[in-house]
Amino acid sequence: MPTPSIPIPHRHGTLDTPLSRAVFTSADKVAVVDGTHRFTYRQMADRVAGLRGGLLGLGLASGDRVAGLALNSFRHLEAWFAIPTANLIFNDLNFRLAPAELEFIVNDSGARILLADATHWPVALDLLDRCPALERLVWLDDGSAPDGALGWDALAAAAPLTADPPDLDADSVAGITYTGGTTGRPKGVMQTHGNLIANTKQLLWANPLFAHDRFLHLTPMFHSAGVANIYGLTLVGGTHIICPGFEPELVGRLIEEQSISVCVLVPTMVNMFLHHPGTAQRDLSSWRLCIYAASPMPVPLLRRAMDQLPCEWNQAYGMTEMCPHVSQLTPDDHRLGLSGDPVFEARLASAGQPCIGVDVRIERADGTIADLGEVGEIVVRGPNMMPGYWNRPEETARAFTDDGWYRTGDLASVDEAGYLFIVDRAKDMIVSGGENVYTTEVETAIMSHPAVLEVAVFGIPDERWVEAVHAEIALKAGHEATADDIIAHCRMLIGGYKVPRSVTLRSEPLPKSGAGKILKKDLRSPYWTDRDSSLT
Amino acid sequence: MPTPSIPIPHRHGTLDTPLSRAVFTSADKVAVVDGTHRFTYRQMADRVAGLRGGLLGLGLASGDRVAGLALNSFRHLEAWFAIPTANLIFNDLNFRLAPAELEFIVNDSGARILLADATHWPVALDLLDRCPALERLVWLDDGSAPDGALGWDALAAAAPLTADPPDLDADSVAGITYTGGTTGRPKGVMQTHGNLIANTKQLLWANPLFAHDRFLHLTPMFHSAGVANIYGLTLVGGTHIICPGFEPELVGRLIEEQSISVCVLVPTMVNMFLHHPGTAQRDLSSWRLCIYAASPMPVPLLRRAMDQLPCEWNQAYGMTEMCPHVSQLTPDDHRLGLSGDPVFEARLASAGQPCIGVDVRIERADGTIADLGEVGEIVVRGPNMMPGYWNRPEETARAFTDDGWYRTGDLASVDEAGYLFIVDRAKDMIVSGGENVYTTEVETAIMSHPAVLEVAVFGIPDERWVEAVHAEIALKAGHEATADDIIAHCRMLIGGYKVPRSVTLRSEPLPKSGAGKILKKDLRSPYWTDRDSSLT
Repeated sequence: MPTPSIPIPHRHGTLDTPLSRAVFTSADKVAVVDGTHRFTYRQMADRVAGLRGGLLGLGLASGDRVAGLALNSFRHLEAWFAIPTANLIFNDLNFRLAPAELEFIVNDSGARILLADATHWPVALDLLDRCPALERLVWLDDGSAPDGALGWDALAAAAPLTADPPDLDADSVAGITYTGGTTGRPKGVMQTHGNLIANTKQLLWANPLFAHDRFLHLTPMFHSAGVANIYGLTLVGGTHIICPGFEPELVGRLIEEQSISVCVLVPTMVNMFLHHPGTAQRDLSSWRLCIYAASPMPVPLLRRAMDQLPCEWNQAYGMTEMCPHVSQLTPDDHRLGLSGDPVFEARLASAGQPCIGVDVRIERADGTIADLGEVGEIVVRGPNMMPGYWNRPEETARAFTDDGWYRTGDLASVDEAGYLFIVDRAKDMIVSGGENVYTTEVETAIMSHPAVLEVAVFGIPDERWVEAVHAEIALKAGHEATADDIIAHCRMLIGGYKVPRSVTLRSEPLPKSGAGKILKKDLRSPYWTDRDSSLT
Repeated sequence: MPTPSIPIPHRHGTLDTPLSRAVFTSADKVAVVDGTHRFTYRQMADRVAGLRGGLLGLGLASGDRVAGLALNSFRHLEAWFAIPTANLIFNDLNFRLAPAELEFIVNDSGARILLADATHWPVALDLLDRCPALERLVWLDDGSAPDGALGWDALAAAAPLTADPPDLDADSVAGITYTGGTTGRPKGVMQTHGNLIANTKQLLWANPLFAHDRFLHLTPMFHSAGVANIYGLTLVGGTHIICPGFEPELVGRLIEEQSISVCVLVPTMVNMFLHHPGTAQRDLSSWRLCIYAASPMPVPLLRRAMDQLPCEWNQAYGMTEMCPHVSQLTPDDHRLGLSGDPVFEARLASAGQPCIGVDVRIERADGTIADLGEVGEIVVRGPNMMPGYWNRPEETARAFTDDGWYRTGDLASVDEAGYLFIVDRAKDMIVSGGENVYTTEVETAIMSHPAVLEVAVFGIPDERWVEAVHAEIALKAGHEATADDIIAHCRMLIGGYKVPRSVTLRSEPLPKSGAGKILKKDLRSPYWTDRDSSLT
């Protein structure tokens, strides 16, 4: 087989391309607006070159991890360019996690540096004490850095690194993003340069972004969906508008004042935004596209949203392991869905068709391919597929089929046009307000309470969060505990969004199968009887 | 540096993805219409699986070359799927070349099999005699194969190969496409699976294709631009309509009868189509997009085309070595160009902005980066960049910079928004009717005529072909030859489109520089005085 005559490490794409293209086409255009801060692409590229030099000047070597704990900001955005293109690995942390979870993750990734903003500085100081590999903190905020810490802006003023590190390659790991797991221990998903670039390009076909777009970043930048849009919008030279988090009044104001054209929401946020009294008074006419993720939009909510908001709709389905996009339900699909044709309307409850570049198959339990309409596991492959979990060879091996496809764990059927109808999360996951909650993580936390004998955690319907975390608990004989006791106990151990919103305490044991397994489906079904039929 | 835990050869994309996605989303949709032949995507995929099995059943090994010499047809389309996914290499030949050129190329690629249609069968038989490595011909046409040849349809009926060969990889070479060269000897550009997949995805952002598209393949399938659209349209599940070649009456009829929505033309064809008397009577309302390549569209022609035709316009610039797209001038650019704003109007003469994923820099002769507006060489990099020329390590080394970027040889300046204004072809190339003609190839042919002392070949303006090949010749003292003699001599040696359309014979020597180099620019400039100013 002839091999390439000249080895070119960048052959399959590295993360320097988005910013370099933006400088080529849009140097003097505003790249980012964050409150009173604004930078052109040339200014941003200059800062990023300084940051690369500054970070490597700290004695970090290729492949070293830099953690981050911060709300959305222009500095957080810069981190997604500076760290990977210095051939360092960004371990961007979910700030909603409990301190104990963050400690586990920072120790697992072995990060040597932690970037943190003012909001998360106390937690960061605590992590510096508790994580042996962690050497120093970097102040990722306005004003001067606290004593003993470095400032991000000071790093940006370092001697710029304009050439790529010699070992930067499409297969270099750019980020490690932790995801909850069925074993109760978060796992670090390695995302390579090639993964993130491939995902970005695949995204831009079904979900095109343009130079004239003004994109509101309100979903957290540590999420894979946020990262995909950071690179996608930069590649086309659009303008990033920073929003520290979702709050309906603020979002309406920013859309109006900043002439936002695109944003990402989860269905819960769409619902809250529509119900917010201030929304109707806003001029939202600049808003052309709303991307939503995490779950299909219930048809009544979608109808109301399409009626009251000026934008088109695009649904994305994916997971951190696919960096993250697997499939998309496009604006065309949404328009057709409300056209009155029942085939198209039914597809509004689907997760759309595979992204270009992503191969999808639906597998039976025996590994054979399911027929059309038959439920099986979604198994996928593509250039955006992670190479594996950080330092977890066994869990990595279990995540893939023998022929190298990723097992999503989600169960779905496919119609004749390749639309994916997800019917269950095989990994026993709840999607609440757009965040994934693995029930085993919650169950592990609850089981550590001394009064608990048995527990089953599952999602129940919720107006605001789509699904809410619910726990059914059997107490040990002779022990007592209230629902509030259980909730307070969980709050110490796991992130607030994972803590049960409701708890049912039982004095008798939970129902079990002949083999002694808790019949979670039987416990769950009474909550969903009305809903399941309306979703299909 | 952590390396991927599981080696996955398909990581960066292989050419099985387009057809597998089409089967997933569009199995029972018509994939291809070719005269009375039509196949759904499922039928096409079944034939392709059979062809992969059939080809490998001939004793071919991974990396072996299969040549092709054929007009556009559904079988030609199938070859672009079956050959690369069997991990064989498709050497698709330019049927406009002279037999001597084809012989050189087939010997150079070392193809063991040659696919040919009825039109090219006599040439194919001749090549079978002349090319030692060539073992057999395959009949790529209707009816049964001539004695001693295999039939493509018989191969398609072989035991299907549904799994990918174990060594198929993004870096496997999928095609070798020959391009003329400054040395006078065609060079085979290796195009990998990863190259072609990357180009396809980059293309689909600026030039989106959709499932509802009906694409007219009228530019030859051996051209890189044709190949890009073969994969792009399949990826989205659109319908391929085959046209054996450009003829204005036929093209108008097919657009009307087949409800064509997209096609690729070169400016010469647009001009001929507009001037054809039958065009005005056609219902062309289905036509939404015309992609043109090879050169910018003169503004008067573009105005007329936008006035008389219903489609939008997209210009592509590239070369075989970039598989092939470097930049694109989008429909938005065209609309803005006619809006009256002189900045946007000037950009109609540009080659647009870089494709997403392609890095572009403009280099001075000393390797430094040119300023905005300053002319330098276009130097590019991206996942669609060839790994090199087949068996030409020295020419490969010369084609790249020390840091692994491809030297296009084209001279351009860039404006503040990254639009490429190509001012000259450093490789001394004429673009005539959309085909590249390297002047050294023509000069070599002319010099072999016994009466010729000196020759300079260059392009001159031509209403129909944009540029026409012109030769200025000084004859040897005491020798005589007419322009017709020279043209007839060339016709034996080089493809018809390379043969000079006009010849000026001189009795005195050609003008030369102090160093004795022929002053081609001085000879060329009188023909272009009016034109050059109108282009900028």
